[in-house]
Amino acid sequence: MPFCVFQDFNLAAIYVSDAQYNRNVYFDTSPQAVRLYMLYNHWALKVLLYFFMLVNLSLAIFEDPAVYPLPIWATMLVEILCLLIFTIRVIHYAKVILRDKFWKDPKNICIIVILTLTLVDMIIYGALKAANYYGVRWSRVLRPLLLVNVTEGRQLRRAFRSIRNALPQIFYVFLLFMFSILIFALMALKLLGKRGLTNINGTPYFTSYLEIMFDLYVLVTTANSPDVMMPAYNANFFFAVFFIVYILINTYIFMSVFLAVVYNNYKKYLKEEVRQLVRAKRHKMVRAFGVLQEQREEGGEPVVTQASWNQLVRLVQPNLSNAHRELLWSVSDDKNQGAIGKVAFVQLADLLNIEIITIKSRPHPLQSLCPSLYQSAPSKLLCQLVQHRAFVMVYDLIILVNAVFIGLDEENPMIANSEWVFLALYILEILLKLYVFEPRVFFSKHSFWNWFDTVIVISALIATIVNSVMKSCNRQILDIVFILRVLRLIRVVDSIKRFNYISYSFIYPCIKIICICGDPAVVYYIFAMVGMELFKGKVTFYEQSSTDPAKAYCGNPLLNGTDFAKLNYCKNNFNDVVSSFILLVELTVVNQWHDILYSGFATVTHISARIFFVLFHVIVVIVILNIFVAFVLEAFFVEYSVDKSDLQTSLERKIEELELAVAQYVTFPFQYNTCNM
Amino acid sequence: MPFCVFQDFNLAAIYVSDAQYNRNVYFDTSPQAVRLYMLYNHWALKVLLYFFMLVNLSLAIFEDPAVYPLPIWATMLVEILCLLIFTIRVIHYAKVILRDKFWKDPKNICIIVILTLTLVDMIIYGALKAANYYGVRWSRVLRPLLLVNVTEGRQLRRAFRSIRNALPQIFYVFLLFMFSILIFALMALKLLGKRGLTNINGTPYFTSYLEIMFDLYVLVTTANSPDVMMPAYNANFFFAVFFIVYILINTYIFMSVFLAVVYNNYKKYLKEEVRQLVRAKRHKMVRAFGVLQEQREEGGEPVVTQASWNQLVRLVQPNLSNAHRELLWSVSDDKNQGAIGKVAFVQLADLLNIEIITIKSRPHPLQSLCPSLYQSAPSKLLCQLVQHRAFVMVYDLIILVNAVFIGLDEENPMIANSEWVFLALYILEILLKLYVFEPRVFFSKHSFWNWFDTVIVISALIATIVNSVMKSCNRQILDIVFILRVLRLIRVVDSIKRFNYISYSFIYPCIKIICICGDPAVVYYIFAMVGMELFKGKVTFYEQSSTDPAKAYCGNPLLNGTDFAKLNYCKNNFNDVVSSFILLVELTVVNQWHDILYSGFATVTHISARIFFVLFHVIVVIVILNIFVAFVLEAFFVEYSVDKSDLQTSLERKIEELELAVAQYVTFPFQYNTCNM
Repeated sequence: MPFCVFQDFNLAAIYVSDAQYNRNVYFDTSPQAVRLYMLYNHWALKVLLYFFMLVNLSLAIFEDPAVYPLPIWATMLVEILCLLIFTIRVIHYAKVILRDKFWKDPKNICIIVILTLTLVDMIIYGALKAANYYGVRWSRVLRPLLLVNVTEGRQLRRAFRSIRNALPQIFYVFLLFMFSILIFALMALKLLGKRGLTNINGTPYFTSYLEIMFDLYVLVTTANSPDVMMPAYNANFFFAVFFIVYILINTYIFMSVFLAVVYNNYKKYLKEEVRQLVRAKRHKMVRAFGVLQEQREEGGEPVVTQASWNQLVRLVQPNLSNAHRELLWSVSDDKNQGAIGKVAFVQLADLLNIEIITIKSRPHPLQSLCPSLYQSAPSKLLCQLVQHRAFVMVYDLIILVNAVFIGLDEENPMIANSEWVFLALYILEILLKLYVFEPRVFFSKHSFWNWFDTVIVISALIATIVNSVMKSCNRQILDIVFILRVLRLIRVVDSIKRFNYISYSFIYPCIKIICICGDPAVVYYIFAMVGMELFKGKVTFYEQSSTDPAKAYCGNPLLNGTDFAKLNYCKNNFNDVVSSFILLVELTVVNQWHDILYSGFATVTHISARIFFVLFHVIVVIVILNIFVAFVLEAFFVEYSVDKSDLQTSLERKIEELELAVAQYVTFPFQYNTCNM
Repeated sequence: MPFCVFQDFNLAAIYVSDAQYNRNVYFDTSPQAVRLYMLYNHWALKVLLYFFMLVNLSLAIFEDPAVYPLPIWATMLVEILCLLIFTIRVIHYAKVILRDKFWKDPKNICIIVILTLTLVDMIIYGALKAANYYGVRWSRVLRPLLLVNVTEGRQLRRAFRSIRNALPQIFYVFLLFMFSILIFALMALKLLGKRGLTNINGTPYFTSYLEIMFDLYVLVTTANSPDVMMPAYNANFFFAVFFIVYILINTYIFMSVFLAVVYNNYKKYLKEEVRQLVRAKRHKMVRAFGVLQEQREEGGEPVVTQASWNQLVRLVQPNLSNAHRELLWSVSDDKNQGAIGKVAFVQLADLLNIEIITIKSRPHPLQSLCPSLYQSAPSKLLCQLVQHRAFVMVYDLIILVNAVFIGLDEENPMIANSEWVFLALYILEILLKLYVFEPRVFFSKHSFWNWFDTVIVISALIATIVNSVMKSCNRQILDIVFILRVLRLIRVVDSIKRFNYISYSFIYPCIKIICICGDPAVVYYIFAMVGMELFKGKVTFYEQSSTDPAKAYCGNPLLNGTDFAKLNYCKNNFNDVVSSFILLVELTVVNQWHDILYSGFATVTHISARIFFVLFHVIVVIVILNIFVAFVLEAFFVEYSVDKSDLQTSLERKIEELELAVAQYVTFPFQYNTCNM
């Protein structure tokens, strides 16, 4: 294939990098489409997209009801800009892939519908506002759905898809669960309704069927235990049995069953998706092989020569070192034939994903600078001291003493000055280590704790100096100083070997957990938007210093004398997007949600406000939170059972074979690379 | 082997039934030991043992602090009787198994130690009481441990063993968790301690390190959310972020990690145990084969003849029908050779565990009684009507109407009389079904819903008649009538096919879940005993009708004005074992445990009472409850992935082969037979 070789390599490189990053896009293979596709995958464009996505979502901060109000035309203008960017991105995508593939993907239809609806809503809202009518920006709830569809948030989409798959089963279990509540409520009504019992506030106990159902639903969330049971229990011993059976069945068994259903579907879906990914990856690699293959002898197997391979890898990962590339080739071309077949070639994507760190044991820069001093006896003794176990233990002790000192009153001058001593000690430690260890090794990419230490200590130094210079006792800087001081203590976790083991099997899942946090965030955003439209301005927070008599009832006379106002809950409101988020987190934790939070908002609006709160509980606590738990469980089980892949083993064997003893290689499995896997 | 054939069959039968019921006992094979072992496994002795175990545990109801006080000599006498029974059981066991095996089993040592300690404690307590000194019956906490060790509660022991295995990992994660709380508490102290914030009751907010730690620990249980955050949140927006990060890390991630650790260990241990069980079962069956084997030809494989096999099976399961036995033989002796080898023989235990229900499609008794009437056109029409789908739908409708009527006021005479109509309708339904279906089929062992229906309807009939005859409106009978009426509604679940599917995959795990409830019960019992010693008589409950002024503060002046008394929590006390259990369930649900329940008991005793409550939370909520959830998850996953075993398939194929079309066979997998598997 002598002609158009450059195009071929480009195409092959795209196939390989698609396989490497698990992109499953059936792009057009014409040269201009390939160029467009390369542009589409460019990191700058992706960063731009994420940036505008963030801008679009954070518009809620400036729109009515706003944290920082901006005029409507300003937010509208920014939103139109965002929409424009998203539209361009979609058009770009449409140019890249085949026409019929584009229209078959529900994702694209979804984006186009959302963009159109948003535009329509903006026009209507603008017109209404211009005519001074009341308008609702209902399309704001669609914004997070754009995030799910436009970006490469595969983790997010997978979570939603596995929720969608689990929905029928969740729904049937939910029906059974509701049926169980209905039956228990009916029984409670019959057993307790006619006994003339009263709640503590004197209202009749368990006389209305709907109220009983709601009370029992709240009991599932445990928020009104044991209060809901006390009047009955006080009247007779045996009614406690009724409630205990109820709690066992509905709170423990049903909630575990929800988890089981969600987790089971999540696992099933994950397995299926991993299978599909592996298939797609293989497919892409086979196509890349097809582009580059040559036939060395008549009738022989098609192969890829080392020269083409090298050119390909240089295109795919330009920053790969020559040594690293040669190592990968020697793993692929095990028998040293100068060319590899299809089977060996297909492994390339996985090989590139295995991270190899080369730690060259080069001499310390000081040694080359003034060898006589660095090699002298006192210097050598110092090196031995720093590398000794006792050095670590002394510093652990210092950290513990430091922890005690932090706990003491910092206004005592002795304590305040001791901070300088500790800072000096920590800086000394870093300098000593830098003296002993090669700086590039000390600050290598995977020396998490060294980086952590240095950043925290230097920030603390700067903040402490700024604080003592300003002397005005600026609360914010002081807060930062305190936070940095406390964070320094975390380092002690690294020192204890046993912890060390755990914390590694803890950090990787935690990194993965961050990936899934977008998932509740999307649902929170939607509920925050709806909540703001429903409840904005109903409850007002007055500053502590305010003397307004309305402060006692959160600015709403309806709340006068309610627990909501008495417990100082005025700041739990839907008046802006940040307050709404915090309130929704409180609702997720479920405690106090029924008689304080919900009833506060029901008082200022209508009893049907209950629907909003129950719906939030069903969706977030029963569905989303269980996906979260399923995710954590799965992440840990993978962590517990992680074995080195075959490929990793053969790579490590090759490293040993080649006797690359001068370089210390560490391989990392490719599971942890990205949220997208 | 012509001599002592009877002994041989006995021995082989014991091996087989050991294999069948997964008993893993290395008993002595001498004839008298075998006879003793058969006695040891007799159901009557086991029932006796369980009965005395129950008596021993329920002594707590009669001992000080008692629900129904009995003199000390009475409870002591009963306890000595129980101890005697347990001692006899242990001696019996020691006679059955080999001497060195007995002393190697920690279970036996455990029992002997507990029995001795209990005896010592009883003597000391009796002496102290006789001399009128104060004494504590501390050995009562050991009683549930006897339950774990003496009985065949394998499920219970497995749960505890998997907890024990998981303990090191749980402990390390717990340390990390505590470290995280320490760090957050230190940060909270530094950030919030000096701001002069106050709680709602005016006390300073977040100023004492210990208090902050406790508050943050309580926040993990969600019991004080959002109150603990409100003062900081009211002061500044950004402090909410601190609490949200705290909740995310400690409440959600750490709690999920605890579940992951417990679940992972549970699964690992379960797998290992199942493997051991399978090995032990095989071992037993091989020994049984060794006892019965014959050599039919010189140099041939040893076999068991059909005659010996028949005799063996008759010994093992005397109530097995001939047809069933022949079916099993034909599955084992697939090639019809009149004898089976080792491989086929070893399957016997599993074969016996597969339940086969023979539903003979015999004619209806009425048909043989008066065929002309039963075969007449109106009778046939009736049969068709009852078997029609519409019949089921009509009765579902009746149930729904009934549900509405139950919800209405039953003092209205129209409604009260309607109950008779519904009862009549339900009885009519059962009679009609009995007319159409063969009674023995209708009431077969596995027709759960038919049994359920009949029992509920007949009980309701009896209770309603008794109630209307007595006319005194006896509240208890009325309660029973109500409960039965509501339970009748559950039947509607059976009618809906989709539910039906779910409820089956729901019922089996639920049966299994009952098996694991002994697990928390053991821990509850221990905590109840300790709690009673610590807090008995500190809080008194006064009846509603009481006019004693002490009622307002639960009989303890220290509680005057506290939330505990205000919320009417006086009945939440440790004054007897039943109250203690109910209180412990409330503590398990965790809501209100901190500022009401705990602080109530801390007020009447000492601040260190907190240790008891936190310890209970750590053990029950973090460990036991997670085992419970792990168990439910595993039960459902097994249910979702249950495949018919090979053996079951071959049995079903054989049934088809033999064209046993006249009889309808249903096979049940052997997973569900017993808690012991």
